[in-house]
Amino acid sequence: MKLYGFWRSSAAYRVRIALNLKGLDAEQSFVHLRKGEQRAPDFLTLNPQGLVPSLIEGDRAFTQSLAIVEYLEETHPAPAFLPKDAMARARVRALALAIACDIHPLNNLRVLVYLKREMKQEQATIDEWYRHWVREGFTGIEQMLATSKETGKFCHGDAPGLADICLVPQIYNAQRLACDLAPYPTIMRIHAACQALAAFQNAAPEQQGDAE
Amino acid sequence: MKLYGFWRSSAAYRVRIALNLKGLDAEQSFVHLRKGEQRAPDFLTLNPQGLVPSLIEGDRAFTQSLAIVEYLEETHPAPAFLPKDAMARARVRALALAIACDIHPLNNLRVLVYLKREMKQEQATIDEWYRHWVREGFTGIEQMLATSKETGKFCHGDAPGLADICLVPQIYNAQRLACDLAPYPTIMRIHAACQALAAFQNAAPEQQGDAE
Repeated sequence: MKLYGFWRSSAAYRVRIALNLKGLDAEQSFVHLRKGEQRAPDFLTLNPQGLVPSLIEGDRAFTQSLAIVEYLEETHPAPAFLPKDAMARARVRALALAIACDIHPLNNLRVLVYLKREMKQEQATIDEWYRHWVREGFTGIEQMLATSKETGKFCHGDAPGLADICLVPQIYNAQRLACDLAPYPTIMRIHAACQALAAFQNAAPEQQGDAE
Repeated sequence: MKLYGFWRSSAAYRVRIALNLKGLDAEQSFVHLRKGEQRAPDFLTLNPQGLVPSLIEGDRAFTQSLAIVEYLEETHPAPAFLPKDAMARARVRALALAIACDIHPLNNLRVLVYLKREMKQEQATIDEWYRHWVREGFTGIEQMLATSKETGKFCHGDAPGLADICLVPQIYNAQRLACDLAPYPTIMRIHAACQALAAFQNAAPEQQGDAE
Protein backbone atom coordinates (compact mmCIF):
# COMPACT_ATOMS: atom_id res chain seq x y z
CA MET A 1 0.00 0.00 0.00
CA LYS A 2 1.05 3.55 -0.64
CA LEU A 3 -0.35 6.58 1.16
CA TYR A 4 -0.31 9.99 -0.48
CA GLY A 5 -0.49 12.59 2.26
CA PHE A 6 0.81 15.80 3.72
CA TRP A 7 2.17 16.05 7.24
CA ARG A 8 -0.30 18.69 8.37
CA SER A 9 -3.39 17.32 6.61
CA SER A 10 -5.73 16.07 9.31
CA ALA A 11 -7.42 13.74 6.87
CA ALA A 12 -4.07 12.08 6.09
CA TYR A 13 -3.27 12.05 9.83
CA ARG A 14 -6.47 10.03 10.43
CA VAL A 15 -5.38 7.41 7.91
CA ARG A 16 -1.88 7.23 9.40
CA ILE A 17 -3.39 6.52 12.84
CA ALA A 18 -5.68 3.88 11.35
CA LEU A 19 -2.84 2.11 9.55
CA ASN A 20 -0.75 2.13 12.74
CA LEU A 21 -3.58 0.78 14.89
CA LYS A 22 -4.15 -2.05 12.39
CA GLY A 23 -0.42 -2.72 12.25
CA LEU A 24 -0.32 -2.10 8.49
CA ASP A 25 2.65 -0.72 6.58
CA ALA A 26 2.18 1.78 3.80
CA GLU A 27 4.89 3.53 1.84
CA GLN A 28 4.42 7.27 2.21
CA SER A 29 4.41 9.73 -0.63
CA PHE A 30 4.20 13.45 0.11
CA VAL A 31 1.94 15.92 -1.66
CA HIS A 32 2.86 19.48 -0.71
CA LEU A 33 -0.48 21.23 -0.32
CA ARG A 34 0.96 24.72 0.07
CA LYS A 35 2.89 24.29 -3.19
CA GLY A 36 -0.29 23.09 -4.96
CA GLU A 37 1.04 19.60 -5.76
CA GLN A 38 -2.47 18.24 -5.16
CA ARG A 39 -3.54 19.91 -8.40
CA ALA A 40 -0.82 18.33 -10.55
CA PRO A 41 -2.35 16.27 -13.41
CA ASP A 42 -0.62 13.06 -12.25
CA PHE A 43 -2.03 13.40 -8.78
CA LEU A 44 -5.52 14.21 -10.07
CA THR A 45 -5.64 10.77 -11.69
CA LEU A 46 -5.23 9.34 -8.17
CA ASN A 47 -7.65 11.78 -6.57
CA PRO A 48 -9.84 13.78 -8.96
CA GLN A 49 -10.85 16.00 -6.04
CA GLY A 50 -7.27 17.27 -5.72
CA LEU A 51 -7.21 16.48 -2.01
CA VAL A 52 -5.19 14.22 0.24
CA PRO A 53 -5.15 11.46 1.30
CA SER A 54 -5.18 8.82 -1.40
CA LEU A 55 -4.40 5.24 -0.50
CA ILE A 56 -3.15 3.06 -3.34
CA GLU A 57 -3.57 -0.70 -3.25
CA GLY A 58 -2.81 -2.60 -6.45
CA ASP A 59 -4.35 -0.60 -9.30
CA ARG A 60 -6.95 0.97 -7.06
CA ALA A 61 -6.79 4.50 -5.62
CA PHE A 62 -8.95 5.09 -2.57
CA THR A 63 -9.97 8.60 -1.52
CA GLN A 64 -11.77 10.23 1.40
CA SER A 65 -10.21 9.44 4.76
CA LEU A 66 -13.34 7.98 6.38
CA ALA A 67 -14.00 5.73 3.39
CA ILE A 68 -10.39 4.57 3.60
CA VAL A 69 -10.66 3.88 7.34
CA GLU A 70 -13.90 1.92 6.82
CA TYR A 71 -12.16 -0.03 4.05
CA LEU A 72 -9.27 -0.89 6.36
CA GLU A 73 -11.81 -1.95 8.99
CA GLU A 74 -13.60 -4.26 6.55
CA THR A 75 -10.44 -5.81 5.14
CA HIS A 76 -8.47 -6.00 8.43
CA PRO A 77 -11.12 -6.42 11.14
CA ALA A 78 -8.75 -6.67 14.13
CA PRO A 79 -8.34 -4.61 16.19
CA ALA A 80 -11.84 -3.26 15.54
CA PHE A 81 -12.50 0.45 14.97
CA LEU A 82 -16.26 -0.03 15.33
CA PRO A 83 -18.24 -1.98 17.94
CA LYS A 84 -20.38 -4.94 16.84
CA ASP A 85 -23.81 -3.60 17.80
CA ALA A 86 -25.49 -1.49 15.11
CA MET A 87 -26.69 1.19 17.55
CA ALA A 88 -23.21 1.53 19.01
CA ARG A 89 -21.69 1.66 15.52
CA ALA A 90 -24.04 4.52 14.69
CA ARG A 91 -22.89 6.36 17.81
CA VAL A 92 -19.21 6.01 16.91
CA ARG A 93 -19.82 7.04 13.31
CA ALA A 94 -21.84 10.06 14.47
CA LEU A 95 -18.95 11.23 16.68
CA ALA A 96 -16.51 10.78 13.81
CA LEU A 97 -18.77 12.62 11.35
CA ALA A 98 -19.41 15.45 13.81
CA ILE A 99 -15.71 16.18 13.36
CA ALA A 100 -15.24 15.13 9.74
CA CYS A 101 -18.32 16.98 8.43
CA ASP A 102 -19.00 19.76 10.89
CA ILE A 103 -15.59 21.02 12.02
CA HIS A 104 -12.76 20.01 9.75
CA PRO A 105 -14.14 20.98 6.29
CA LEU A 106 -14.71 24.54 7.48
CA ASN A 107 -11.13 24.89 8.70
CA ASN A 108 -9.37 23.14 5.88
CA LEU A 109 -6.41 24.91 4.24
CA ARG A 110 -8.26 25.54 0.95
CA VAL A 111 -11.07 27.27 2.85
CA LEU A 112 -8.72 29.49 4.87
CA VAL A 113 -6.92 30.40 1.64
CA TYR A 114 -10.25 31.31 0.00
CA LEU A 115 -11.20 33.53 2.94
CA LYS A 116 -7.86 35.31 2.63
CA ARG A 117 -7.35 35.56 -1.13
CA GLU A 118 -10.84 35.70 -2.60
CA MET A 119 -12.69 37.31 0.28
CA LYS A 120 -9.80 39.52 1.43
CA GLN A 121 -10.35 38.77 5.10
CA GLU A 122 -7.88 39.83 7.80
CA GLN A 123 -5.93 37.09 9.56
CA ALA A 124 -7.69 37.89 12.87
CA THR A 125 -11.10 37.36 11.24
CA ILE A 126 -9.95 34.07 9.74
CA ASP A 127 -8.57 32.91 13.10
CA GLU A 128 -11.89 33.74 14.75
CA TRP A 129 -13.72 31.84 12.01
CA TYR A 130 -11.49 28.85 12.76
CA ARG A 131 -12.06 29.00 16.49
CA HIS A 132 -15.79 29.52 16.06
CA TRP A 133 -16.27 26.19 14.25
CA VAL A 134 -14.05 24.36 16.72
CA ARG A 135 -16.17 25.75 19.59
CA GLU A 136 -19.43 24.90 17.83
CA GLY A 137 -18.28 21.37 17.13
CA PHE A 138 -16.49 20.55 20.35
CA THR A 139 -19.35 21.90 22.50
CA GLY A 140 -21.71 19.32 20.98
CA ILE A 141 -19.17 16.52 20.98
CA GLU A 142 -18.19 17.16 24.62
CA GLN A 143 -21.87 16.88 25.51
CA MET A 144 -22.27 13.67 23.48
CA LEU A 145 -19.25 12.13 25.24
CA ALA A 146 -19.84 13.42 28.77
CA THR A 147 -23.49 12.32 28.93
CA SER A 148 -23.11 8.78 27.59
CA LYS A 149 -22.36 5.66 29.60
CA GLU A 150 -20.79 4.22 26.47
CA THR A 151 -17.90 6.65 26.69
CA GLY A 152 -14.97 4.90 28.33
CA LYS A 153 -11.27 5.48 28.36
CA PHE A 154 -11.77 6.34 24.69
CA CYS A 155 -14.75 7.79 22.79
CA HIS A 156 -16.49 4.44 22.88
CA GLY A 157 -15.42 1.94 25.50
CA ASP A 158 -11.84 1.21 26.41
CA ALA A 159 -10.22 0.73 23.01
CA PRO A 160 -9.48 3.40 20.42
CA GLY A 161 -11.72 3.48 17.35
CA LEU A 162 -13.08 5.52 14.48
CA ALA A 163 -14.10 8.50 16.62
CA ASP A 164 -10.71 8.72 18.33
CA ILE A 165 -9.02 8.53 14.93
CA CYS A 166 -10.88 11.71 13.95
CA LEU A 167 -10.62 13.44 17.33
CA VAL A 168 -6.85 13.54 17.73
CA PRO A 169 -6.03 15.31 14.42
CA GLN A 170 -8.79 17.83 15.13
CA ILE A 171 -7.25 18.64 18.51
CA TYR A 172 -3.83 18.99 16.88
CA ASN A 173 -5.37 21.63 14.60
CA ALA A 174 -7.22 23.35 17.42
CA GLN A 175 -4.03 23.59 19.47
CA ARG A 176 -2.12 25.06 16.52
CA LEU A 177 -4.70 27.84 16.35
CA ALA A 178 -4.56 28.33 20.14
CA CYS A 179 -8.22 27.40 20.66
CA ASP A 180 -9.25 27.30 24.33
CA LEU A 181 -9.84 23.60 25.03
CA ALA A 182 -10.49 23.92 28.78
CA PRO A 183 -14.29 23.70 28.28
CA TYR A 184 -13.94 20.15 26.92
CA PRO A 185 -12.56 17.99 29.76
CA THR A 186 -13.91 14.70 28.42
CA ILE A 187 -12.48 15.33 24.98
CA MET A 188 -9.11 16.25 26.48
CA ARG A 189 -9.07 13.21 28.78
CA ILE A 190 -9.65 10.95 25.77
CA HIS A 191 -7.03 12.84 23.80
CA ALA A 192 -4.47 12.15 26.53
CA ALA A 193 -5.36 8.43 26.49
CA CYS A 194 -4.83 8.34 22.71
CA GLN A 195 -1.56 10.23 22.87
CA ALA A 196 -0.18 7.61 25.25
CA LEU A 197 -0.33 5.06 22.41
CA ALA A 198 2.48 4.59 19.89
CA ALA A 199 -0.03 4.29 17.02
CA PHE A 200 -1.11 7.88 17.63
CA GLN A 201 2.36 9.20 18.50
CA ASN A 202 3.92 7.84 15.33
CA ALA A 203 1.16 9.30 13.17
CA ALA A 204 1.74 12.84 14.44
CA PRO A 205 2.52 15.47 11.79
CA GLU A 206 5.95 16.26 13.24
CA GLN A 207 6.96 12.59 12.89
CA GLN A 208 6.43 12.56 9.12
CA GLY A 209 9.16 12.72 6.50
CA ASP A 210 7.80 15.95 5.00
CA ALA A 211 7.40 17.82 8.30
CA GLU A 212 8.85 21.31 8.17
CA MET B 1 -39.18 5.69 14.41
CA LYS B 2 -39.42 9.42 14.46
CA LEU B 3 -37.38 11.75 12.26
CA TYR B 4 -36.62 15.29 13.36
CA GLY B 5 -35.89 17.33 10.26
CA PHE B 6 -36.43 20.50 8.31
CA TRP B 7 -37.78 20.52 4.77
CA ARG B 8 -34.77 22.32 3.29
CA SER B 9 -32.05 20.56 5.30
CA SER B 10 -30.11 18.41 2.85
CA ALA B 11 -28.94 16.15 5.65
CA ALA B 12 -32.58 15.45 6.61
CA TYR B 13 -33.42 15.04 2.92
CA ARG B 14 -30.79 12.27 2.68
CA VAL B 15 -32.40 10.38 5.55
CA ARG B 16 -35.88 10.78 4.03
CA ILE B 17 -34.64 9.24 0.77
CA ALA B 18 -32.98 6.40 2.68
CA LEU B 19 -36.13 5.63 4.68
CA ASN B 20 -38.21 5.64 1.50
CA LEU B 21 -35.79 3.36 -0.38
CA LYS B 22 -35.85 0.89 2.52
CA GLY B 23 -39.64 1.12 2.71
CA LEU B 24 -39.52 2.32 6.32
CA ASP B 25 -42.06 4.61 7.95
CA ALA B 26 -40.98 7.33 10.32
CA GLU B 27 -43.19 9.91 11.95
CA GLN B 28 -41.89 13.35 11.03
CA SER B 29 -41.26 16.15 13.46
CA PHE B 30 -40.21 19.55 12.18
CA VAL B 31 -37.42 21.69 13.59
CA HIS B 32 -37.52 25.17 12.09
CA LEU B 33 -33.88 26.05 11.50
CA ARG B 34 -34.49 29.68 10.55
CA LYS B 35 -36.41 30.18 13.80
CA GLY B 36 -33.57 28.57 15.80
CA GLU B 37 -35.64 25.64 17.10
CA GLN B 38 -32.54 23.43 16.77
CA ARG B 39 -31.06 25.29 19.75
CA ALA B 40 -34.05 24.71 22.06
CA PRO B 41 -32.98 22.81 25.23
CA ASP B 42 -35.42 19.94 24.54
CA PHE B 43 -34.02 19.42 21.08
CA LEU B 44 -30.42 19.60 22.29
CA THR B 45 -31.06 16.51 24.42
CA LEU B 46 -31.85 14.69 21.15
CA ASN B 47 -28.96 16.24 19.25
CA PRO B 48 -26.32 18.05 21.33
CA GLN B 49 -24.88 19.52 18.13
CA GLY B 50 -28.08 21.50 17.55
CA LEU B 51 -28.38 20.19 14.01
CA VAL B 52 -30.90 18.12 12.09
CA PRO B 53 -31.59 15.31 11.46
CA SER B 54 -32.13 13.20 14.53
CA LEU B 55 -33.72 9.80 14.17
CA ILE B 56 -35.39 8.41 17.28
CA GLU B 57 -35.85 4.68 17.77
CA GLY B 58 -36.95 3.52 21.21
CA ASP B 59 -34.95 5.51 23.75
CA ARG B 60 -32.09 6.10 21.35
CA ALA B 61 -31.47 9.30 19.38
CA PHE B 62 -29.27 8.92 16.31
CA THR B 63 -27.50 11.89 14.77
CA GLN B 64 -25.41 12.60 11.66
CA SER B 65 -27.18 11.69 8.43
CA LEU B 66 -24.51 9.33 7.11
CA ALA B 67 -24.31 7.48 10.42
CA ILE B 68 -28.11 7.15 10.31
CA VAL B 69 -28.07 5.86 6.73
CA GLU B 70 -25.35 3.31 7.59
CA TYR B 71 -27.44 2.26 10.60
CA LEU B 72 -30.50 1.74 8.40
CA GLU B 73 -28.31 -0.25 5.99
CA GLU B 74 -27.05 -2.52 8.80
CA THR B 75 -30.46 -3.07 10.37
CA HIS B 76 -32.48 -3.29 7.11
CA PRO B 77 -30.05 -4.71 4.53
CA ALA B 78 -32.47 -4.87 1.59
CA PRO B 79 -32.42 -3.09 -0.78
CA ALA B 80 -28.70 -2.51 -0.27
CA PHE B 81 -27.19 0.99 -0.27
CA LEU B 82 -23.65 -0.38 -0.47
CA PRO B 83 -22.21 -3.11 -2.72
CA LYS B 84 -20.80 -6.29 -1.15
CA ASP B 85 -17.17 -5.92 -2.24
CA ALA B 86 -15.01 -3.86 0.14
CA MET B 87 -13.26 -1.93 -2.67
CA ALA B 88 -16.59 -1.03 -4.22
CA ARG B 89 -17.99 -0.02 -0.81
CA ALA B 90 -15.02 2.30 -0.39
CA ARG B 91 -15.78 3.88 -3.77
CA VAL B 92 -19.42 4.52 -2.90
CA ARG B 93 -18.53 5.92 0.52
CA ALA B 94 -15.89 8.18 -1.05
CA LEU B 95 -18.47 9.63 -3.45
CA ALA B 96 -20.91 10.18 -0.59
CA LEU B 97 -18.23 11.81 1.59
CA ALA B 98 -17.01 14.01 -1.25
CA ILE B 99 -20.44 15.63 -0.98
CA ALA B 100 -21.07 15.28 2.74
CA CYS B 101 -17.63 16.54 3.82
CA ASP B 102 -16.37 18.69 0.97
CA ILE B 103 -19.42 20.51 -0.38
CA HIS B 104 -22.38 20.53 1.96
CA PRO B 105 -20.74 21.67 5.25
CA LEU B 106 -19.40 24.79 3.54
CA ASN B 107 -22.82 25.75 2.23
CA ASN B 108 -24.90 24.88 5.26
CA LEU B 109 -27.34 27.51 6.55
CA ARG B 110 -25.33 28.19 9.73
CA VAL B 111 -22.24 28.94 7.65
CA LEU B 112 -24.06 31.30 5.28
CA VAL B 113 -25.55 33.07 8.31
CA TYR B 114 -22.07 33.43 9.84
CA LEU B 115 -20.69 34.92 6.61
CA LYS B 116 -23.53 37.44 6.59
CA ARG B 117 -23.90 38.37 10.26
CA GLU B 118 -20.43 37.92 11.76
CA MET B 119 -18.32 38.60 8.70
CA LYS B 120 -20.67 41.22 7.18
CA GLN B 121 -20.37 39.83 3.67
CA GLU B 122 -22.58 41.00 0.81
CA GLN B 123 -25.13 38.54 -0.55
CA ALA B 124 -23.29 38.42 -3.92
CA THR B 125 -20.06 37.37 -2.17
CA ILE B 126 -21.92 34.69 -0.21
CA ASP B 127 -23.57 33.38 -3.38
CA GLU B 128 -20.19 33.19 -5.08
CA TRP B 129 -18.77 31.33 -2.05
CA TYR B 130 -21.64 28.87 -2.38
CA ARG B 131 -21.14 28.31 -6.08
CA HIS B 132 -17.36 28.03 -5.67
CA TRP B 133 -17.63 24.99 -3.37
CA VAL B 134 -20.25 23.36 -5.57
CA ARG B 135 -17.93 23.79 -8.58
CA GLU B 136 -14.91 22.50 -6.66
CA GLY B 137 -16.83 19.47 -5.44
CA PHE B 138 -18.81 18.60 -8.55
CA THR B 139 -15.76 18.92 -10.82
CA GLY B 140 -14.04 16.12 -8.89
CA ILE B 141 -17.15 14.01 -8.52
CA GLU B 142 -18.03 14.29 -12.23
CA GLN B 143 -14.51 13.05 -13.00
CA MET B 144 -14.82 10.19 -10.50
CA LEU B 145 -18.14 9.13 -12.05
CA ALA B 146 -17.33 9.70 -15.73
CA THR B 147 -14.03 7.79 -15.68
CA SER B 148 -15.18 4.67 -13.82
CA LYS B 149 -16.67 1.54 -15.34
CA GLU B 150 -18.47 0.99 -12.06
CA THR B 151 -20.73 3.96 -12.67
CA GLY B 152 -24.01 2.70 -14.07
CA LYS B 153 -27.50 4.08 -14.27
CA PHE B 154 -26.73 5.35 -10.75
CA CYS B 155 -23.47 6.36 -9.05
CA HIS B 156 -22.54 2.71 -8.59
CA GLY B 157 -24.21 0.17 -10.82
CA ASP B 158 -27.87 0.15 -11.68
CA ALA B 159 -29.50 0.56 -8.28
CA PRO B 160 -29.56 3.69 -6.12
CA GLY B 161 -27.31 3.72 -3.07
CA LEU B 162 -25.46 5.81 -0.53
CA ALA B 163 -23.82 8.12 -3.07
CA ASP B 164 -27.10 8.85 -4.86
CA ILE B 165 -28.73 9.56 -1.49
CA CYS B 166 -26.18 12.34 -0.98
CA LEU B 167 -26.10 13.56 -4.58
CA VAL B 168 -29.75 14.46 -5.06
CA PRO B 169 -30.08 16.84 -2.07
CA GLN B 170 -26.83 18.52 -3.10
CA ILE B 171 -28.22 19.15 -6.59
CA TYR B 172 -31.43 20.51 -5.09
CA ASN B 173 -29.29 23.04 -3.21
CA ALA B 174 -27.15 23.85 -6.23
CA GLN B 175 -30.23 24.49 -8.35
CA ARG B 176 -31.71 26.78 -5.68
CA LEU B 177 -28.56 28.90 -5.90
CA ALA B 178 -28.66 28.83 -9.72
CA CYS B 179 -25.32 27.02 -10.04
CA ASP B 180 -24.41 26.14 -13.62
CA LEU B 181 -24.71 22.34 -13.75
CA ALA B 182 -24.05 21.93 -17.49
CA PRO B 183 -20.38 20.93 -16.88
CA TYR B 184 -21.53 17.80 -15.01
CA PRO B 185 -23.40 15.61 -17.53
CA THR B 186 -22.81 12.33 -15.68
CA ILE B 187 -24.00 13.79 -12.39
CA MET B 188 -27.10 15.20 -14.07
CA ARG B 189 -27.88 11.95 -15.90
CA ILE B 190 -27.77 10.10 -12.56
CA HIS B 191 -29.84 12.83 -10.95
CA ALA B 192 -32.54 12.32 -13.58
CA ALA B 193 -32.52 8.56 -12.95
CA CYS B 194 -32.99 9.16 -9.23
CA GLN B 195 -35.75 11.70 -9.72
CA ALA B 196 -37.73 9.14 -11.70
CA LEU B 197 -38.13 7.08 -8.51
CA ALA B 198 -40.93 7.66 -6.00
CA ALA B 199 -38.49 7.23 -3.07
CA PHE B 200 -36.62 10.34 -4.20
CA GLN B 201 -39.72 12.27 -5.33
CA ASN B 202 -41.49 11.80 -2.01
CA ALA B 203 -38.44 12.91 -0.05
CA ALA B 204 -38.21 16.25 -1.85
CA PRO B 205 -38.33 19.35 0.35
CA GLU B 206 -41.51 20.67 -1.26
CA GLN B 207 -43.34 17.44 -0.38
CA GLN B 208 -42.75 17.85 3.36
CA GLY B 209 -45.31 19.03 5.89
CA ASP B 210 -43.24 22.05 6.90
CA ALA B 211 -42.48 23.26 3.34
CA GLU B 212 -43.06 26.98 2.93
